[in-house]
Amino acid sequence: MAQVRNKQVILRDYVSGFPKETDMSIVESTLSLKLPEGSNEPLTGFGVARVLESGHTDYKKGDLIWGLTKWEEYSLVPSTQILSKIEHTDVPLSYYTGILGMPGLTAYAGFFELGSPKKGENVFVSAASGAVGQLVGQFAKLTGCYVVGSAGSKEKVDLLKNKLGFDEAFNYKEEPDLDATLKRYFPEGIDIYFENVGGKTLDAVLLNMRVHGRIPVCGMVSQYNLTQPEGVTNLTNLIYKRIRMQGFNVFDFFHLYPKFLEFLLPHIREGKVVYVEDIADGFEKGPAALVGLYSGRNVGKQVLLVARE
Amino acid sequence: MAQVRNKQVILRDYVSGFPKETDMSIVESTLSLKLPEGSNEPLTGFGVARVLESGHTDYKKGDLIWGLTKWEEYSLVPSTQILSKIEHTDVPLSYYTGILGMPGLTAYAGFFELGSPKKGENVFVSAASGAVGQLVGQFAKLTGCYVVGSAGSKEKVDLLKNKLGFDEAFNYKEEPDLDATLKRYFPEGIDIYFENVGGKTLDAVLLNMRVHGRIPVCGMVSQYNLTQPEGVTNLTNLIYKRIRMQGFNVFDFFHLYPKFLEFLLPHIREGKVVYVEDIADGFEKGPAALVGLYSGRNVGKQVLLVARE
Repeated sequence: MAQVRNKQVILRDYVSGFPKETDMSIVESTLSLKLPEGSNEPLTGFGVARVLESGHTDYKKGDLIWGLTKWEEYSLVPSTQILSKIEHTDVPLSYYTGILGMPGLTAYAGFFELGSPKKGENVFVSAASGAVGQLVGQFAKLTGCYVVGSAGSKEKVDLLKNKLGFDEAFNYKEEPDLDATLKRYFPEGIDIYFENVGGKTLDAVLLNMRVHGRIPVCGMVSQYNLTQPEGVTNLTNLIYKRIRMQGFNVFDFFHLYPKFLEFLLPHIREGKVVYVEDIADGFEKGPAALVGLYSGRNVGKQVLLVARE
Repeated sequence: MAQVRNKQVILRDYVSGFPKETDMSIVESTLSLKLPEGSNEPLTGFGVARVLESGHTDYKKGDLIWGLTKWEEYSLVPSTQILSKIEHTDVPLSYYTGILGMPGLTAYAGFFELGSPKKGENVFVSAASGAVGQLVGQFAKLTGCYVVGSAGSKEKVDLLKNKLGFDEAFNYKEEPDLDATLKRYFPEGIDIYFENVGGKTLDAVLLNMRVHGRIPVCGMVSQYNLTQPEGVTNLTNLIYKRIRMQGFNVFDFFHLYPKFLEFLLPHIREGKVVYVEDIADGFEKGPAALVGLYSGRNVGKQVLLVARE
């Protein structure tokens, strides 16, 4: 066990814009499980892992953890890095990369802490079938809200309406006039817009917000790699409608994790909250899975299955 | 007293875009102080007035009030309309249209309630010599912040630095690269941006905000009458820097008025907070004064003096 063969996904070079598969390589090396040795740095991401050896008193051999792991089969984790021990194993372990991990807490903090939802309010979620969006919609339904989601394919729209409990859903690619679309689904306006995409969608939403509306800003994926981001022209509505728009990062809300687990685990066990995963089976499928995220090829939370128990 | 001659400023017709002087007329009519009679509606605005006759138990003849009054020499105020009685007359009465009225409460609520300022933070105010901005800067100094203001003339910049206590000020019309300007004045970034103008200024500010920054959105005067508003392209910074951006309206904060008076009156009496007014003397100067607001011709709070005591 002192020496293992270790596959890693590495970047060949600095990536400008969205990554392409050819930007990444899978390399294999040996890794000592005893002490660090230098090597080309693999990508980082959130993963689930089992502790094989530990010099840290909080973790012992056999423990399951989730947290920032590298894209490699075996990782040496420095003691300064925070990992979360997995206590509940009656749910799929992959859930700790999604519904019970960072995306889940993101949805929880963004919707409940920043969205301040009230029963009966109208909620709109973009990228609604994604790792975060699908939970925001379900949290909205649990709160007694009306919720509409947008996504980029018929398959995703069906999922939102038939499996994830959204009241309505639409394929934004088939809606040439988003303002009119939102007026159709929200004749009385939107109280909470959970923002994942930015750009034209945000501009149309601003026209349809209600007074004292809230916009938790989780992402603006449509804008990240544009040479010139789209201009948002309807921001004066922030004043007219006294809107609170707030960017956030899940790392500011980690203190809520125990409360979040306590809230969510029973709902999962009772089947009241479900979670759609898109599992790429096998380490070699990592690069394609990552690339697919940027064009929305995945349906639900993208998971890369590196090893089964 | 039952019948008075009454000058009014009225709009000739619906105004598209910024008002011009020729859009307005000054008309003179007689008004019964007893009961309403129909006439062409004058403009509304905040004013100070003395009660000449009252059927409302809260107001009696001789009381001074401030609130929404019409642009006319004498007004009949319906009993449903809320007016504030003026209790403190050791300060100029005009202050109740500015520092002790709506603009003052706007600055107070926007800066303290939405801005959540902390000692030592960096504050930027646009339209900084205006009715609201000049107070935001002084509130920031009282809180122990570093504060920089932007305005549109050398005279205003001098006022900010020499009379209103801003640490720094600049004329935005002489700064071709606002991003570079802000980096010069805020090498460590901006914690609070008190937004009065929108557009290009907001875009440059977003590049220079610090993590967990706040942007109370009071106005976006540069955008109000553009056929096509300028697009704001740097909103992804809301996420990267976890910024809270919040539009507001002073009417949501009227419950703070007593607390606000209690805070501000002593500072005024001790000369620790000053207020610059631009007084147009005489009813006939009303239209020109209003028009001047949109091009920034006024220096400080624009007041129209209708009558002296």
